[in-house]
Amino acid sequence: MASPPVVVNLEEKLATFDDHWKPKIVGEMNDLHLKLVKVRGEFVWHSHEDTDEFFMVISGRLTIRLRDDDDVVLDPGEFFIVPRGVEHCPVAEAETAALLIEPAGTLNTGDSENGELTADAEWI
Amino acid sequence: MASPPVVVNLEEKLATFDDHWKPKIVGEMNDLHLKLVKVRGEFVWHSHEDTDEFFMVISGRLTIRLRDDDDVVLDPGEFFIVPRGVEHCPVAEAETAALLIEPAGTLNTGDSENGELTADAEWI
Repeated sequence: MASPPVVVNLEEKLATFDDHWKPKIVGEMNDLHLKLVKVRGEFVWHSHEDTDEFFMVISGRLTIRLRDDDDVVLDPGEFFIVPRGVEHCPVAEAETAALLIEPAGTLNTGDSENGELTADAEWI
Repeated sequence: MASPPVVVNLEEKLATFDDHWKPKIVGEMNDLHLKLVKVRGEFVWHSHEDTDEFFMVISGRLTIRLRDDDDVVLDPGEFFIVPRGVEHCPVAEAETAALLIEPAGTLNTGDSENGELTADAEWI
């Protein structure tokens, strides 16, 4: 390998940032990015037309509202995959940390027109 | 969605099987499968020419020996992505559980000729 093998410790990475709704890239696998995000409050309704999206809660509790189905509630150690094209809105009442997996370049706000919440993911 | 949204709880899924080195599919995202596996002992040296492979330890400790680099040691909450084409051999001294991510259809033994350890992944 060109560079030394890198082990990623989720807790150590989470300790390096505090901002909300701004996913940080912590790994790359094929064309995917693994991202950590801290969230609190309500995000924006959006969907991703071309990709499923993986959410796993590490701490706290994440509710994923679905326009056409019951809310999904995720506690630590639980994951949910939002199918492509399915409109969803993540919400967290208290501080919550999650691991996301989605293709490199996926916008956090998907097809939403809410540009204020759109964040370019950076590596940490 | 055609079927109700499914939350996957890693601990609950892990409680449903006991066999070693036989990954079980617990989720599908785009062309990838998310798999849980329990391991103990030493696997077989192999590589995957066409894909990176994600390993995250849930309990126990997993060592991933690399033919051309130092061993990687993963404790719970830590992940490592084996780059495509890199020969590796997973080893666990004690009972260990891990989450794997790789394209659907990826053989657990990769290019190894050790057919005894090759297992078809099933959904749980």
